[in-house]
Amino acid sequence: MMTIKDMLGRGGVMTRDEAFALLAEHLTAPRLALEEAPLSRSLGRVLGQDILSPADHPPFDRSTMDGFAVRAADTFGATESLPALLTVVGDIPMGAMPERTIGRGEAMAIATGGALPQGADAVVMFEYAQHVEPSHIEVVKPVAPQEHVSFRGEDIRQGERVLGAGQVIRPQDMAALASMGRTVVPVFERPRVAIITTGNEIVPADTEPGPGRIRDSNSYSLEGLIALAGGEARKIGIIPDDQARLRQALEQALQDCHIVLFTGGSSVGTADYTARVINELGGPGVLIHGVSIKPGKPLIAGFAQAASGLVPVFGLPGHPVAVMVCFDLFVRPVIERFSGALAHPALAAAGAGRVVKARLRRSIPSAPGREDHVRVTLERREDGLYAVPVFGASGLISTLVKALGTVVIPLNSIGIEAGEEVDVRLF
Amino acid sequence: MMTIKDMLGRGGVMTRDEAFALLAEHLTAPRLALEEAPLSRSLGRVLGQDILSPADHPPFDRSTMDGFAVRAADTFGATESLPALLTVVGDIPMGAMPERTIGRGEAMAIATGGALPQGADAVVMFEYAQHVEPSHIEVVKPVAPQEHVSFRGEDIRQGERVLGAGQVIRPQDMAALASMGRTVVPVFERPRVAIITTGNEIVPADTEPGPGRIRDSNSYSLEGLIALAGGEARKIGIIPDDQARLRQALEQALQDCHIVLFTGGSSVGTADYTARVINELGGPGVLIHGVSIKPGKPLIAGFAQAASGLVPVFGLPGHPVAVMVCFDLFVRPVIERFSGALAHPALAAAGAGRVVKARLRRSIPSAPGREDHVRVTLERREDGLYAVPVFGASGLISTLVKALGTVVIPLNSIGIEAGEEVDVRLF
Repeated sequence: MMTIKDMLGRGGVMTRDEAFALLAEHLTAPRLALEEAPLSRSLGRVLGQDILSPADHPPFDRSTMDGFAVRAADTFGATESLPALLTVVGDIPMGAMPERTIGRGEAMAIATGGALPQGADAVVMFEYAQHVEPSHIEVVKPVAPQEHVSFRGEDIRQGERVLGAGQVIRPQDMAALASMGRTVVPVFERPRVAIITTGNEIVPADTEPGPGRIRDSNSYSLEGLIALAGGEARKIGIIPDDQARLRQALEQALQDCHIVLFTGGSSVGTADYTARVINELGGPGVLIHGVSIKPGKPLIAGFAQAASGLVPVFGLPGHPVAVMVCFDLFVRPVIERFSGALAHPALAAAGAGRVVKARLRRSIPSAPGREDHVRVTLERREDGLYAVPVFGASGLISTLVKALGTVVIPLNSIGIEAGEEVDVRLF
Repeated sequence: MMTIKDMLGRGGVMTRDEAFALLAEHLTAPRLALEEAPLSRSLGRVLGQDILSPADHPPFDRSTMDGFAVRAADTFGATESLPALLTVVGDIPMGAMPERTIGRGEAMAIATGGALPQGADAVVMFEYAQHVEPSHIEVVKPVAPQEHVSFRGEDIRQGERVLGAGQVIRPQDMAALASMGRTVVPVFERPRVAIITTGNEIVPADTEPGPGRIRDSNSYSLEGLIALAGGEARKIGIIPDDQARLRQALEQALQDCHIVLFTGGSSVGTADYTARVINELGGPGVLIHGVSIKPGKPLIAGFAQAASGLVPVFGLPGHPVAVMVCFDLFVRPVIERFSGALAHPALAAAGAGRVVKARLRRSIPSAPGREDHVRVTLERREDGLYAVPVFGASGLISTLVKALGTVVIPLNSIGIEAGEEVDVRLF
């Protein structure tokens, strides 16, 4: 049993930046295996290889308008009063190559997407062609060569790199892959993130908690957060405060997970078991034990040695809000870095739009030397958008459910006054 | 076979606002069935019922600190020089109720999350209690009644509405549901959106296109877009330009889908088949045939009569970029409205952060009377973020793949000058 002196005898806490820098020093992205994802299920996955176009796209010269395929030169000088008379020698059926070539003074009806016949080099829009008899049209406006035609390979050339490894697949990328016939897509496996729930007082969420016990809830918010960050959650289970069993759970997690999270036990005792177990398994062990953020101060972070290399291990505080703050600040960036996804640098700099500006409705006091993450909801008023703090102890789930985002009070600030403009980081 | 006159004889196009208003007039959200989603897979789903708490949370008075459970009155007046001496009568084990009550002058060691013993009304933090001998502590600072205690029901009261029908489930909501034992969650089924790919020239993406043919790509970007909007895509198949078969496909889609999309055939002829088929099936039929947006001008939209009521049917242009623009402006809002999700009004007003500000790198010309949606990428420069137009015909997939978002040139603008600040709507 640990003494109070032990509990108190733990050096000072670090700032968020110090903690993150220390973590980053040892962070090595794992080699992720490639998986084959069906194209229809590839949204949001990270492309594992460069995709080169196997062929020209479009594969043939196509009309981009409904009209007539012509030789542009035959229309030069055409006007309303002096139209060019062309002979219509046929229709180009969709989905087939034209059966004949176009000669001087000839035209063929063509629809958008239709294949341009040989001899033609432009398309006259229907609007500028008048049928004078079924077999003849008058063109009242000249077209330039190449006008209204998408030439073979104009969009994508054979062998061209269309998408690169590390790109996160968006709907338009799905279309690009389909147009190249890639209905199965090589993607990186998702980083696997183990969740070990600790604490003698925690029971599974689907059971009735006995006296003094409480349901596991953090493993569920973590599942959601991990999915949003692009990872795959692996629940190891609820482990009592027993060093041997915690070690066993960590060893199991290290076998095939890229990141390990402990969560649940909020007491100092549980946190210390977690720290000891991390230190037992080789590697640098615990590097961070306490960070000057609120909520989230008791965060533990370090590395354990697995067969595959050093694996980052986090001991998240037990409070639901602290779990979310610590995840956002420390775990999410690691999952994103491990995912193989290359963030677009300009987009990353723009903050990817997760932030809205609002004025603070009520003053928020803070203590210098501590970075406060205050939950807020948003209120639309006549004179603009307001951020309204949702106060409550960090253990309270109800405040999290009511909040739409957080406002950060910087490390050395004593608070923010009502009326000031703040950045609200949306959940 | 339709004549050129028929093709040209189609009244004028509408503005986007006119078109959307006309659509909204007939729009009735369907009654979605409830499904039971496992909590671990409920992220992003729309809650189908209000969730009332079945019990108080926390279910018992809990300590929020590591320390000693005490009667607050026993510590009143305590100082460093005149500490209060208390007898430690035991440890409170985690996950069990204390076996005895606390009397005057007594204390019990308690960890964060531990159950407060009867008789105690506050917790003294370890930092302010010194063991003078194993069975006694000196408290050097008074605690107020209720300090460091989270009382039964303080977070959530039995019977309280914690989450409401229509809320989109976030990670923290998953935690709230878990804490109430709801590991199976009543959610609305996702609106089902049928995709009917049209055009004789279209072949399935996994086949090699023959001469004059091209692979289906739009149905894949639509799958992605539908998923992002909260819908469920149902691919009906690739249907040739044959009125009877298109009608059959639409009838099939109407049997169990809430929204129907035609896509693929980009020619006027195909579009007209689509329009005729929509008009054949009762209801208001085609209401919108042409909108003053670029790309996307040939959009068709209307309603067909299904057994379940009026179903919105869209004929999307065949160009990949036009498909995305029309989806974003017209289809996405309908899916979102049909999903049962209640948008938070303030969040909706804030634009939910999908927009970033940037300066335009090059001038974009436009024509008055047309709303241009210009694809842009972003570039980080020393003096800030720039939006760089990605020019190309709207049929080109490569421009979509390169773009990060769009800039809208308003209906009556002749363009935007380089250097002006613009809103970039991120994809």
